[in-house]
Amino acid sequence: MSKIIKKIGVLTSGGDSSGMNAAIRSVVRTCAFHGLECVGIYRGYEGLMEGDFINLDARSVKGIINKGGTILKSARSEEFKTKEGRQKAYDKLIESNVDGLVVIGGDGSFTGAMIFNQEFDFPVMGIPGTIDNDIFGTTHTLGFDTALNTVVEAIDKIRDTASSHNRLFFIEVMGRDVGHIALNAGVAGGAEEILIPEEDLGLERLEESLRRSRKSGKSSSIVIVAEGDKIGKNIFELKEYVDENMSGYDVRVSVLGHMQRGGSPSCFDRVLASRMGVKAVESILEGKTNFMVGLLNNKMELTPLENAIKGKSKINLELLRVSDIMTT
Amino acid sequence: MSKIIKKIGVLTSGGDSSGMNAAIRSVVRTCAFHGLECVGIYRGYEGLMEGDFINLDARSVKGIINKGGTILKSARSEEFKTKEGRQKAYDKLIESNVDGLVVIGGDGSFTGAMIFNQEFDFPVMGIPGTIDNDIFGTTHTLGFDTALNTVVEAIDKIRDTASSHNRLFFIEVMGRDVGHIALNAGVAGGAEEILIPEEDLGLERLEESLRRSRKSGKSSSIVIVAEGDKIGKNIFELKEYVDENMSGYDVRVSVLGHMQRGGSPSCFDRVLASRMGVKAVESILEGKTNFMVGLLNNKMELTPLENAIKGKSKINLELLRVSDIMTT
Amino acid sequence: MSKIIKKIGVLTSGGDSSGMNAAIRSVVRTCAFHGLECVGIYRGYEGLMEGDFINLDARSVKGIINKGGTILKSARSEEFKTKEGRQKAYDKLIESNVDGLVVIGGDGSFTGAMIFNQEFDFPVMGIPGTIDNDIFGTTHTLGFDTALNTVVEAIDKIRDTASSHNRLFFIEVMGRDVGHIALNAGVAGGAEEILIPEEDLGLERLEESLRRSRKSGKSSSIVIVAEGDKIGKNIFELKEYVDENMSGYDVRVSVLGHMQRGGSPSCFDRVLASRMGVKAVESILEGKTNFMVGLLNNKMELTPLENAIKGKSKINLELLRVSDIMTT
Amino acid sequence: MSKIIKKIGVLTSGGDSSGMNAAIRSVVRTCAFHGLECVGIYRGYEGLMEGDFINLDARSVKGIINKGGTILKSARSEEFKTKEGRQKAYDKLIESNVDGLVVIGGDGSFTGAMIFNQEFDFPVMGIPGTIDNDIFGTTHTLGFDTALNTVVEAIDKIRDTASSHNRLFFIEVMGRDVGHIALNAGVAGGAEEILIPEEDLGLERLEESLRRSRKSGKSSSIVIVAEGDKIGKNIFELKEYVDENMSGYDVRVSVLGHMQRGGSPSCFDRVLASRMGVKAVESILEGKTNFMVGLLNNKMELTPLENAIKGKSKINLELLRVSDIMTT
Repeated sequence: MSKIIKKIGVLTSGGDSSGMNAAIRSVVRTCAFHGLECVGIYRGYEGLMEGDFINLDARSVKGIINKGGTILKSARSEEFKTKEGRQKAYDKLIESNVDGLVVIGGDGSFTGAMIFNQEFDFPVMGIPGTIDNDIFGTTHTLGFDTALNTVVEAIDKIRDTASSHNRLFFIEVMGRDVGHIALNAGVAGGAEEILIPEEDLGLERLEESLRRSRKSGKSSSIVIVAEGDKIGKNIFELKEYVDENMSGYDVRVSVLGHMQRGGSPSCFDRVLASRMGVKAVESILEGKTNFMVGLLNNKMELTPLENAIKGKSKINLELLRVSDIMTT
Repeated sequence: MSKIIKKIGVLTSGGDSSGMNAAIRSVVRTCAFHGLECVGIYRGYEGLMEGDFINLDARSVKGIINKGGTILKSARSEEFKTKEGRQKAYDKLIESNVDGLVVIGGDGSFTGAMIFNQEFDFPVMGIPGTIDNDIFGTTHTLGFDTALNTVVEAIDKIRDTASSHNRLFFIEVMGRDVGHIALNAGVAGGAEEILIPEEDLGLERLEESLRRSRKSGKSSSIVIVAEGDKIGKNIFELKEYVDENMSGYDVRVSVLGHMQRGGSPSCFDRVLASRMGVKAVESILEGKTNFMVGLLNNKMELTPLENAIKGKSKINLELLRVSDIMTT
Repeated sequence: MSKIIKKIGVLTSGGDSSGMNAAIRSVVRTCAFHGLECVGIYRGYEGLMEGDFINLDARSVKGIINKGGTILKSARSEEFKTKEGRQKAYDKLIESNVDGLVVIGGDGSFTGAMIFNQEFDFPVMGIPGTIDNDIFGTTHTLGFDTALNTVVEAIDKIRDTASSHNRLFFIEVMGRDVGHIALNAGVAGGAEEILIPEEDLGLERLEESLRRSRKSGKSSSIVIVAEGDKIGKNIFELKEYVDENMSGYDVRVSVLGHMQRGGSPSCFDRVLASRMGVKAVESILEGKTNFMVGLLNNKMELTPLENAIKGKSKINLELLRVSDIMTT
Repeated sequence: MSKIIKKIGVLTSGGDSSGMNAAIRSVVRTCAFHGLECVGIYRGYEGLMEGDFINLDARSVKGIINKGGTILKSARSEEFKTKEGRQKAYDKLIESNVDGLVVIGGDGSFTGAMIFNQEFDFPVMGIPGTIDNDIFGTTHTLGFDTALNTVVEAIDKIRDTASSHNRLFFIEVMGRDVGHIALNAGVAGGAEEILIPEEDLGLERLEESLRRSRKSGKSSSIVIVAEGDKIGKNIFELKEYVDENMSGYDVRVSVLGHMQRGGSPSCFDRVLASRMGVKAVESILEGKTNFMVGLLNNKMELTPLENAIKGKSKINLELLRVSDIMTT
């Protein structure tokens, strides 16, 4: 039987993403709406083990819905991966009379939450906050949409200078294991080729694609490369390869880097965060635990944390095809 | 039996929305990919009846994916509502050997397309392009996401000045019959109240909400009002009402207006437009007609034009509730 | 002889503008740098008379350089226009051991500061914060550059929809007595005509200009109208006039309104604010009083408040001419 | 005696910058205003030597004022540095009856223009287009203001993630020989330290600054580094240095790269470009040659090309001091 929930804790963990603050705000206000107390936990599981908590009421999250990053700060924790670490965390929660925990983060954070739940039978609920969109059980993770807009704006700017100088640009975007950002931003930015970890196109295909693009009359080209692409070369090596093997290209490289994480969240991410916060708190109130809140078919749905972690969202094959057609 | 498709026409009709150009580009390039010819038709049904066509190949739509508005221009047509008008249109299509028609627009445009199809058995396919998001059969219409970001950025700016002066702002956003923009942007902008056509909250509820907001310590407030809200007063009358009936408020009004339609499309709208264009052309090639392409559960799906028009997308009741909780 | 300065107060007054927070931050940090105390005064002269002060150290202004509005809030005060009001203000300053006052605001605020200085021989220094750029002694007031970018982005968006529908748009921008925003944003937005308070072009000129624009092949037009233009009609009456007197125009109206005040300040405004804050505090330290800090020939210069108020910055005649040439 | 000017050529040369298109538009429309013909020359001096010209009338530059890059494309030319190259260019100009040349570019482009003028007594006029702002005779070059806003927006985004994780970021911005971008964007972005080519602060100063920043309670820090800073280490070596020599910092690196060049120009750059284009053409008409158009004290002024090149704009020492005070 689920016990009565009077106080909920919320933390952000792992790499930050835009929309985390909006989710914190939603968790806090939903608690207020239902007459629950809410505590913010600083620096993810680190702060959880240290008992670095702060009471949050509806007013304390004023003016944060449009702020990037996370007011609760985030961290990765090695200690929480140990039984001792998790015991410390549990003790701190009990000490502060916290009855449930909302974890905003990615798959690493969810793994911790799931183990914690199994060990201590403590109610946990996950909200997917990561720009990578690599979580099963939701079509969109918090921060993905905002990151895409940031990347596309950067591509648009680079396109200006690329076409002014008839250059070939390799642009690296985030995505160590998954190519969601690369694929979506590549299509939206009108990239001539997109290299993602899920596909090993090989250098021949890249060469062919660049040659076709030139033949078709394009004087400049943009190739989007996900950090973790499978082609076996990093972006600087790609430049070298083209410099050495293909004549007539003036190649430049740009690594977009950490600015992809920050920035004021898009409307989409703010709305999504607000919906997820409500769903997370109310699911705990309904006695549910060990789930992740997700967006499926435009509705809030629960997925067991275990599935969310294992599943890894698949690359959209239809979108891959759209990309190919657009660069005909 | 569907005849062989060799040439496809594309037009934009009704109020323009961001992403229309990206959809045109996608239609044109998908035609090129499949070895079809493509003609652009200027000014919607007006240009269709006049035979104001232009041949478009893959290169002619270069550099438009990130442009607002529509390079084919748009218009509303009275003449196309008559049998004579539609006959003229048909003659022009036959004269130019066009075998299928992609119509990018809203419900009015789809009604025209549907009747045209019924009368002449001419293959038509709809792509929902309108900022209002009021079409059944797709969770998102082209331009909706971009419009939301524009509105939310404006709210953020107005919030700065509202809170600097402890003011109450009424902000009018587009949406004559539907409150999708108001509801989403209101939640994302942290509005204290949202007035939409689907709900008649009454002035009492508004007053109560403003009083509660003040009691809770908020010194400034923002109320989002859809053009067509049911409260029976326009935004200037609302201001008057508060001036006369509630003391202590310094009220200001802002009508966001037409800038909501334009602007470079968001990544979301560019990707959506690219996907829709491919699906529209390939559906015609598969012999389908009289459908609208839509986004459902993150997939491209067809909905009969008739249903798309009649259905009207419903306001998201869950989101209404989220809005209430957030303003606790 | 100027007495030793140990504590400085800072307030924002009148209409808020972007960059005010950056100026507050600069005042506070310059005080810290010189070992002075600093107090923030809430709601302009209202808070000054009430003694609504807050101690500010270098850390308390963290993270505000990029925020629109003013954390100290702003207000207009009738009471401060009376001798009694100013006496109250003086008493509060003495009570709190404040030795000098930095006033961030426009000409109304400066008038108050000047009279206050004359009556009580209290050191005051002005920082021009207003989007209108109507202050003599500085080429740029705080918030002007940011407002211009906001207006130009809105014009760009409206241009998309205007040219998609071959429409004529009248766009109203801020500027009751001066046309700086209208003129600059009009040139930058490629407006076909610009109506400003400094010039009464007359309706004939407007008609002629619209006709010339159409003859030259333009299918859509944008006319920028300053709030206070001299043509004797507001923007809605202008629409009516064209509707009644010129055939063939599809006219729309957009009033940009209060969003022009807010938003994250541009780099220009942040740098300007940072420079002005340093100059203001250090000028008080040097025993100067009753001046305004301004930007002249890219340098920080002092102008007597009296001159700053009386002078009113003139419209740039060269820019007017540029505008005419661009719309040839 | 200057001959009668009937036709003017315009080209963009060197690295592209935002505002170049607005300047081209202004040159073209000013020619139209004065009844002159105008030809656009593609790819800078390369196209000049090849006679790659295009006639431009007032309509052909429609809709480019808000586009980044340059529709005329740009290039660097080795051949134009030879007498033979310049002779070819002269022949092409004479062949096409071009009487004067407007060169939009940086100091390298101006050097070419100056030599060309001296050799052939051909009227040339320079417009400073470079994001580096390293030209004497103007307080602002075209593209500088836009680049600053781009950099500051990126810093704001990175600040979100830096402060969420308590990290130290080194951010590299453009500026091989000059630190204008780094200094201005650093002040506007609230950077804790700014490393520019004009100053060798030494690693000790950097260490000290980081330690002071931490002592003052800052948990995250941002250091802006100009490409060409004098500290003797590139940005990746700086990270290594801190990793090895200072404990407790979680260091990240971001190289903003080419997106700094592109993007829709700010209002400031559009207005400046419009003014410069008018001044350039009208100066040629007045018989002037071998000058650069610049912005000095908010007025258009001419500076001999020789001085513009030699002078190099100095870093603003006052702003350096402001930067120091802000990071107290």
